[in-house]
Amino acid sequence: MSENIDLNSVLNNMKSIDNKTYKQVMKVLEKRLESLQESIKEYQIPVILAFDGWSAAGKGTLISRVLHSLDPRFFNVFTMGKMTEERRLRPFLWSFWTKTPAKGRISIFDKSWCRLILPEHCELSTKEKAGFYYDISAFEQQLKDDGFVILKFFLEISKEEQNLRFKELERKPETAWRVNQHDWQQNKDYRNFSIQFNEMVQKTNFKGSEWSIVDADDTKFAIVKTIRIIIDRIEAEIEHRKQKAERPVIYTPDPIVVKNNPLNIDLFKEINDKEYKVRLDFLQQKISEQGYKMYTKRKSVVIVYEGWDAAGKGGNIKRLTERIDPRAYEVVPIAAPTAEELSHHYLWRFFNRMPKDGHMTIFDRSWYGRVMVERIERITPPDDCARAYKEINDMELHLANHGVIIFKFWLQIDQEEQLARFEARQKDPLKNYKITDEDWRNREKWDQYEAAVGEMLKKTHTSYAPWTIVESNDKKYARIKVLEIVTRILDKLL
Amino acid sequence: MSENIDLNSVLNNMKSIDNKTYKQVMKVLEKRLESLQESIKEYQIPVILAFDGWSAAGKGTLISRVLHSLDPRFFNVFTMGKMTEERRLRPFLWSFWTKTPAKGRISIFDKSWCRLILPEHCELSTKEKAGFYYDISAFEQQLKDDGFVILKFFLEISKEEQNLRFKELERKPETAWRVNQHDWQQNKDYRNFSIQFNEMVQKTNFKGSEWSIVDADDTKFAIVKTIRIIIDRIEAEIEHRKQKAERPVIYTPDPIVVKNNPLNIDLFKEINDKEYKVRLDFLQQKISEQGYKMYTKRKSVVIVYEGWDAAGKGGNIKRLTERIDPRAYEVVPIAAPTAEELSHHYLWRFFNRMPKDGHMTIFDRSWYGRVMVERIERITPPDDCARAYKEINDMELHLANHGVIIFKFWLQIDQEEQLARFEARQKDPLKNYKITDEDWRNREKWDQYEAAVGEMLKKTHTSYAPWTIVESNDKKYARIKVLEIVTRILDKLL
Repeated sequence: MSENIDLNSVLNNMKSIDNKTYKQVMKVLEKRLESLQESIKEYQIPVILAFDGWSAAGKGTLISRVLHSLDPRFFNVFTMGKMTEERRLRPFLWSFWTKTPAKGRISIFDKSWCRLILPEHCELSTKEKAGFYYDISAFEQQLKDDGFVILKFFLEISKEEQNLRFKELERKPETAWRVNQHDWQQNKDYRNFSIQFNEMVQKTNFKGSEWSIVDADDTKFAIVKTIRIIIDRIEAEIEHRKQKAERPVIYTPDPIVVKNNPLNIDLFKEINDKEYKVRLDFLQQKISEQGYKMYTKRKSVVIVYEGWDAAGKGGNIKRLTERIDPRAYEVVPIAAPTAEELSHHYLWRFFNRMPKDGHMTIFDRSWYGRVMVERIERITPPDDCARAYKEINDMELHLANHGVIIFKFWLQIDQEEQLARFEARQKDPLKNYKITDEDWRNREKWDQYEAAVGEMLKKTHTSYAPWTIVESNDKKYARIKVLEIVTRILDKLL
Repeated sequence: MSENIDLNSVLNNMKSIDNKTYKQVMKVLEKRLESLQESIKEYQIPVILAFDGWSAAGKGTLISRVLHSLDPRFFNVFTMGKMTEERRLRPFLWSFWTKTPAKGRISIFDKSWCRLILPEHCELSTKEKAGFYYDISAFEQQLKDDGFVILKFFLEISKEEQNLRFKELERKPETAWRVNQHDWQQNKDYRNFSIQFNEMVQKTNFKGSEWSIVDADDTKFAIVKTIRIIIDRIEAEIEHRKQKAERPVIYTPDPIVVKNNPLNIDLFKEINDKEYKVRLDFLQQKISEQGYKMYTKRKSVVIVYEGWDAAGKGGNIKRLTERIDPRAYEVVPIAAPTAEELSHHYLWRFFNRMPKDGHMTIFDRSWYGRVMVERIERITPPDDCARAYKEINDMELHLANHGVIIFKFWLQIDQEEQLARFEARQKDPLKNYKITDEDWRNREKWDQYEAAVGEMLKKTHTSYAPWTIVESNDKKYARIKVLEIVTRILDKLL
């Protein structure tokens, strides 16, 4: 068969494939795949291949064949079937988020994230299931919007074929270990599992990341079909990118109009030194006890700090954590992303730092940089910034669905107060490293930032992850306010 | 008490401390610690604090107090008591290596790496214990040589005091969970545990990272003593760095002389196409089966590929892995370190990628960059490069002690062959991205590299991690040779 032959017309009417045709076809397909790999790198496409299906449907063989012609330095294979403790203590998509590929690389998942909703992993009410489906849909959407190619394959085999394969595997001592009780259960209860799989596939069959159902009774046929689908999809993506490259991104000036900006609040709230000391002592004692409760009840807490430069985030965080058992919390300072972080989805680096159950993570700045500095300084195209509100809300919902308690604080000061603090810092030899030219430049854009923050506060204020604006002209007042809110809510929820 | 008082003279003769003195002393100490924190950042010192000791000796309280005056964005606390599956499947220092701090940061370990040799974690013969001690000694030495400050604290309490504290904890429902059966066992069997702890402390009491034994029956006394030790040690380190900064590093020209360079071998080894195909098919089938065996026997394999530019590493790796189940191996391409990697010990990034038991990791270039490119291009000071041979040997021994099977291949071609391949690559539009100006520049330093490589091969060729020089002028011969060696050794060891 020459390479010029119309492969599709040969293949389209095929239900199984003979050995000779298989070899010829594979030669052509693998060559195409190999050259596509170069395009994946060139166009910096992140690719996710997920393989799911019945036990003994041949996922391993299929994955091997697909990767056969690819450079092993550019893909990673992850076996996701086993629910380790590490995973169980985190939001259910965490283990997939942290393994999403960088641009130009391929992540292959042996068993998909969708599978986590099957009864083999957890018992869920219908409502809870719906929550899971929403999370999965948001996960895939976020990746697709960022240019990810997601291909999901479900390998079907008949009850009879599965039975034969189990017996064949068990016959040889070197493969017998691959069949366990759960596998046999699946064969005996084929009808019931069939319903579950079907529901999973139907409910997660999203536009742009549909499932491909592959009949795997004939392994060779399955391999050819799978590789063809991969080639078609990636070629389409490259075509799409070529066209997109011709249309330049236009950064139109972006006057942000916010009515009733939530930042317009009275900042003249104060606390006197004596009351501050008493309250601080009481509240720190309280949150310290809550830290242990959080641990024993295996609840996790995420606290986001945002605010103007010099608004007092560092000192506020310090007072919050001072008496909590240091084994129970972590403070994550967020700076400009590294090259590696930039090559991933922007939420990737935050997922890497999410607490496990029983712990608290405090983000000193956060994913909200996307709709503030990245928007105002035009680091990120306007469309991506606009999409981020939903993406952030969805991510926070995913955390909340897992039971994470979320706090978000905006530390608000006015321009005069900031100026006073900048000047004080510049005079203090211990603190003047904290103030840079950039801080002064940002200050000049106060109005733009104020509008962007106002919009952000409005669009991302949710029941499960509400914002609190903290009047911070008086640092002490601000510290007590944060402590009071955190302890009050934890009192209710722990 | 004024800050000018001689704190040491007050404290040195103290065995316990009253409340009033404690408060005054702590005020002074915390202020010092706070300003030391700035110096840690300024001088980019990585600091490790390890706390170990008897149950209920007050590690938690102590850690809290030590961290009290520090900025929570600059430290991380790790609870290391629990042996998770993730850890058990890795060399025993892996979980500590991956958590070593970046320069200017502090890692606090609740329970030390030394504790892993206690019977509560594993049953070891005396010989095996000695191996563990060697690994621990090498671990600490490598970090100290890189400028890490390591402080290890062992908290002592008497049998009576421990008994009282357990009872006190059990009395209150909110703390009762903190005492378990193992804790009580320790109290009942105090004498025996005492011997174990003593052995641990004595055997790991290395110069420059000695244990500080802290009498913790009186908690306040223990806190003051601990903080004083930390302050003294870090101040000494800063003094040391100030002096070092005055002595500039001299990069003397570095003519490398290697007698009997192992690279001087006959490169004219070839294999004909027919034999290549037959051998390749046979060996790939074999290593594929060995992949499963490796998995079921929970053995892990590390394969290092080094060699000249265009020596054919990529193609060689591809033939090696082609038929192995992709879930069983990972290929890790090593490029110039990122900023984050540079801020850590140079071995840190490799520990992060070590396989877990049952898996294979192939490094396409590796830690050997330290004694090749980093040496020749003077990226790393000569002393650090010279030290690296032992560091690398020690790291590989640590892996081997855990049961990791290590292969190291040097792919050898001659200058003429390299030139031919460079020229061929430049003509091929699919491959010309592979060849850069740097490749041409490196070529000019062939002799220097050859000498450095020769020295490296001699100094790091060990029984547990031997080098194989692979004649690679004929790529096919090279592929078969690697496959033959790997399969032969795995046959013996699996």
